Amino acid sequence: MATTFLSALSLVLLLGSAAASAYKGSWQHGECDISRINAMEPSFRLQSEGGVSEFWDHNAEEFQCAGVSLHRHTIRTRGMLLPVYHNAPMLVYVLQGKGIYGITISGCPETFESPQQSREGMRSQKFGDRHQQIGFLKEGDVIAIRAGDAHWAYNNGDQDLVVVVLQDNANNANQLDQNPRSFFLAGNPNWGQEQQKEQLRFHGERRHAQHEFGNVFKGMSLDILTEAFDIDEETARKLQCDNDERGMIVIVDKELQVIKPPLREREREYMTNGIDETICTTQNKDNVDNPSRAAVYNPQAGRFSTVNAFTLPLLRFIQLSFAKANLHRNAIMAPHWFMNAHSILYITRGEKYIQVVNQKGQAVFEGQVREGQVLVVPQNFAVVKQAGEQGCEWVQFHTHANAMFNTLSGRTSALRGLPVDVVANAYQISREEAERLKNSRRETLLFSGTRQSRRRVASA
Amino acid sequence: MATTFLSALSLVLLLGSAAASAYKGSWQHGECDISRINAMEPSFRLQSEGGVSEFWDHNAEEFQCAGVSLHRHTIRTRGMLLPVYHNAPMLVYVLQGKGIYGITISGCPETFESPQQSREGMRSQKFGDRHQQIGFLKEGDVIAIRAGDAHWAYNNGDQDLVVVVLQDNANNANQLDQNPRSFFLAGNPNWGQEQQKEQLRFHGERRHAQHEFGNVFKGMSLDILTEAFDIDEETARKLQCDNDERGMIVIVDKELQVIKPPLREREREYMTNGIDETICTTQNKDNVDNPSRAAVYNPQAGRFSTVNAFTLPLLRFIQLSFAKANLHRNAIMAPHWFMNAHSILYITRGEKYIQVVNQKGQAVFEGQVREGQVLVVPQNFAVVKQAGEQGCEWVQFHTHANAMFNTLSGRTSALRGLPVDVVANAYQISREEAERLKNSRRETLLFSGTRQSRRRVASA
Amino acid sequence: MATTFLSALSLVLLLGSAAASAYKGSWQHGECDISRINAMEPSFRLQSEGGVSEFWDHNAEEFQCAGVSLHRHTIRTRGMLLPVYHNAPMLVYVLQGKGIYGITISGCPETFESPQQSREGMRSQKFGDRHQQIGFLKEGDVIAIRAGDAHWAYNNGDQDLVVVVLQDNANNANQLDQNPRSFFLAGNPNWGQEQQKEQLRFHGERRHAQHEFGNVFKGMSLDILTEAFDIDEETARKLQCDNDERGMIVIVDKELQVIKPPLREREREYMTNGIDETICTTQNKDNVDNPSRAAVYNPQAGRFSTVNAFTLPLLRFIQLSFAKANLHRNAIMAPHWFMNAHSILYITRGEKYIQVVNQKGQAVFEGQVREGQVLVVPQNFAVVKQAGEQGCEWVQFHTHANAMFNTLSGRTSALRGLPVDVVANAYQISREEAERLKNSRRETLLFSGTRQSRRRVASA
Repeated sequence: MATTFLSALSLVLLLGSAAASAYKGSWQHGECDISRINAMEPSFRLQSEGGVSEFWDHNAEEFQCAGVSLHRHTIRTRGMLLPVYHNAPMLVYVLQGKGIYGITISGCPETFESPQQSREGMRSQKFGDRHQQIGFLKEGDVIAIRAGDAHWAYNNGDQDLVVVVLQDNANNANQLDQNPRSFFLAGNPNWGQEQQKEQLRFHGERRHAQHEFGNVFKGMSLDILTEAFDIDEETARKLQCDNDERGMIVIVDKELQVIKPPLREREREYMTNGIDETICTTQNKDNVDNPSRAAVYNPQAGRFSTVNAFTLPLLRFIQLSFAKANLHRNAIMAPHWFMNAHSILYITRGEKYIQVVNQKGQAVFEGQVREGQVLVVPQNFAVVKQAGEQGCEWVQFHTHANAMFNTLSGRTSALRGLPVDVVANAYQISREEAERLKNSRRETLLFSGTRQSRRRVASA
Repeated sequence: MATTFLSALSLVLLLGSAAASAYKGSWQHGECDISRINAMEPSFRLQSEGGVSEFWDHNAEEFQCAGVSLHRHTIRTRGMLLPVYHNAPMLVYVLQGKGIYGITISGCPETFESPQQSREGMRSQKFGDRHQQIGFLKEGDVIAIRAGDAHWAYNNGDQDLVVVVLQDNANNANQLDQNPRSFFLAGNPNWGQEQQKEQLRFHGERRHAQHEFGNVFKGMSLDILTEAFDIDEETARKLQCDNDERGMIVIVDKELQVIKPPLREREREYMTNGIDETICTTQNKDNVDNPSRAAVYNPQAGRFSTVNAFTLPLLRFIQLSFAKANLHRNAIMAPHWFMNAHSILYITRGEKYIQVVNQKGQAVFEGQVREGQVLVVPQNFAVVKQAGEQGCEWVQFHTHANAMFNTLSGRTSALRGLPVDVVANAYQISREEAERLKNSRRETLLFSGTRQSRRRVASA
Repeated sequence: MATTFLSALSLVLLLGSAAASAYKGSWQHGECDISRINAMEPSFRLQSEGGVSEFWDHNAEEFQCAGVSLHRHTIRTRGMLLPVYHNAPMLVYVLQGKGIYGITISGCPETFESPQQSREGMRSQKFGDRHQQIGFLKEGDVIAIRAGDAHWAYNNGDQDLVVVVLQDNANNANQLDQNPRSFFLAGNPNWGQEQQKEQLRFHGERRHAQHEFGNVFKGMSLDILTEAFDIDEETARKLQCDNDERGMIVIVDKELQVIKPPLREREREYMTNGIDETICTTQNKDNVDNPSRAAVYNPQAGRFSTVNAFTLPLLRFIQLSFAKANLHRNAIMAPHWFMNAHSILYITRGEKYIQVVNQKGQAVFEGQVREGQVLVVPQNFAVVKQAGEQGCEWVQFHTHANAMFNTLSGRTSALRGLPVDVVANAYQISREEAERLKNSRRETLLFSGTRQSRRRVASA
């Protein structure tokens, strides 16, 4: 077992993620008076033995306004994210790879058992086990995790397992403040943090510059732990992981041994739906790549798929929802605004040109957003998107269990709902022009792009 | 079509609306430690071609504490309020006049169609249309509008259409900050704002001194708009309304042409109730002047009518409710407190004497409130009201879907619920006195005024 | 009737309740970045004729973070707490004694009537009465009171009636700020406050150093009161209680006369359950000492009983819940964290050793907590408890209607739910050790203590 891995730490202020100080002056506690939004990349990266964790600066104006934070774990083959719980609900999107995960809930039964373990003792004792339900991760999976639910994940595939995680700190389920907190049940994840603080001080950052995390057993005394677990002091000391330098993602020496249902059973897993009887058996996962998930599909323009409280009922409690979209070359997503949610975009492939407009009619963002970048679009702000030459694919996290948006053009748009005479008088155009304005675009949300806009060419 | 109307702008600090700076010192972010409440009139007025919009200062301590803002539109005959949506739910009260309105919801069907338009082509093409449901406005109507729902209104009557609008910025449905925001789909409503800022600076006001609004198309580039709507650049430019000086209420040159159901159908509209199947068909209007709406009626004293989640189920989602009251000459509304809501009073006729008492037993307001003035009564604060010589009529907006209040005197009062011995010991009076205290006033909420109080005479 | 009782006021900064200024620097508005929690005792005591009211400093970091405040009334025999309502819901725990209480709700019927009072007039008029339902208090009772509901209590027993009251100021039902407010319907409770302010100034405390309260009738003018109650000015003056020096708890000269159902009926009271039809008849009380209430019972270790929305449905609206626990000598409560609530502990007997750990793995509290002390444990913070030599009994208030916690050790713990190989790799231990770690403690939440921890001995 690798125990002496030296975790390297690097603070990366990547291109495109503007320094928070640039707009600090215009932002005040609790206000969303954003005059400029930036496409953001992670500002802080934590290297572990088994992978890398990258954090977006949750103190940036955009994240503070939306009340969310975002991070991305890249878990290497045989890497395991240590068990951890958070002060706010989260949505996890599996960007790449495959794995195993568990969400352990105190009081729920250990329903996964070694076959006939206790009765026959056929298998060696060390393989005998009984644990709570585990699940399988694959690309396109969306996992909902409640505040305070401990969970872990393991990469049992051949390539990196990459997950993007949104934590909704402004959620009602978080009764603490808006700072993201991670309570680990093992490891020494804040080992690197101490050194990192030195660096942050140098960069003149604020006090809460980073997501905070640690192993909760470190704060308990050994004599209490020995009694609470009925173990010897030597083992109790290991709970505290004082000299563990592996970070929050560790490498499992051999393939992780867990009890898995036969493959056929696993596939059946995706067929269950509806609300199960108790929280112990409630579905916490959905796959957005499932073709039946498409809410909007236009062969000429692209696809838009959603995961919300209707498809994954647990989201009703978590008050988050999710969408995945792709746009073909030069295709356009109709100008629209979300009525009841912020939307946090993460570009998964390609690039697109985006404009975001505030209540004053000012473009607070206007530019290309590339793979790996994040854009926070505040509630009600109007937004329009056009894919680049290579097309674009992205995911969106929404701060409402059933996020709703209105479009400005297209077959189901708000403008189409207006009487033609209202349109004519509003824009001072003829009725004929008004009718064209209402009806020219007959597609719904995703419009085929026949030409590339000049602006995009200019900026290319 | 009138396009060159010069919108005049005037900043009016009316009598009776005390300068915010007078009590600024005692108020801190998020605190409601109000030691003095003022009867307020609009502090800011925006003239448009088709009417006037007046805004109460949402930065005033009272409004900040209640988390609401208030404005009033006076729409002239043939005036049309441009389509707009807001960052918070609102209740609109029709104070005077009649009109047409529409709330367009993206994805809802266009259920109002020109008769046999497409099939027969009998009517000229310019009158052919298809749009979403529209409704009719008359005095006493209360309309509930969700955050992010675009809406418009048109005065098709002979006199001014006057509406008072409460916007609940502290509502859960608003995930932005508490500043009111209006996103217009047309026009150039912030044209006057630019000039107004100059004036505000002169008056030394804070940064967010006014409600902010603009046309969202202004922030989108022309090439994107041409593609998104599949229109020519000339028309796209008109969406942005750059040179539009008509303001937020415009004059329609001829009578606005919309598709209306026959009159008999319209009346049936008031008979529907209950929750309809989808948001597209949910009732968003109720009329508080409907006599069957009276919750309390005392021929000697007055009437109290309510619109709440029981009568208008959409309010359950919006978490607002409404009441209209009138008091005859010298009549008294029982001392009471709202358990679960702030109440924002708008005097529609006459005047009344009001006392508002805080948790320290201090009168934070004591005086006459006149027609057109607004008084914010914070949750739990005790209040007592007596109509003037001419009687008084007013409306109340409540920040809860089912606002509840307790009275201190009268047949259903809290004091009446106390054992007589508790009353006697609490006030150190005899049981006989205690019994009189409990039982003398046999009316319920509205008490006939047999005499005019001395204080009111003195202050007259 | 005792009217000239001189209420003595003393500001007590008791041992163990650290001065708020000690950590003021590290705390900012709306943040829960607690680096040290203190076991707190009341910081302020208000002597009344009929008892004593003690208030914990709601401005202390711990209470600000949890958004709650706490006070304790000690009501002497024949003492009556004057009718009062608050700006936030509360849970009342009866620590000792017995009494009568009433929650008067405007509009609910006066269902308690003198027998045949009106018809026969057999009883002297002064005993004739009609009032709303009253209830009976005994040790172990938990009473839920909504924001804005007026209530009173009376000690009809032989010993002091002691109640501990949690007020949840951060609750959605409170639309004012987080400061606790008490609106009295009688008395002159803030009489002593004026003098107290002098003292507080001397101690350099903040402006809102104490809970604020007053008699709401004081802010209303006499002429309005005479009309509103239809009484003479002499009686109206008595409503204002200007010269009342009895404080908020008064002595009733003879036994308080109320209408009570026969004893047999009273006992039946505990058998009702479920949600009754209206708020007027909804159960507002439950008894946690009822043996059937035990959620966890281990004869070797202790008992854990809960009152939540399942047992007292009114709590669903109030969003609070409650637990009572006792631990035998040296017994341990499993390390655990609350997923969805802060928990506020009040020690009712004995003492225990507690460790509370934050997200950085730091012990923010570590020490003995004694009878009468309060400890605020923020949501998600890990906590472990061990009873002292005499055992320990305490109650917990939770800021969620169905507070849920996860344990770290024991039969239903999160660790037990993990696959043994996850445990082995997380702590870098063998599978055999991992299996012992998961399974050694077979008890559920309360563990028998076979030995006393060294640390506890050292600190004793």
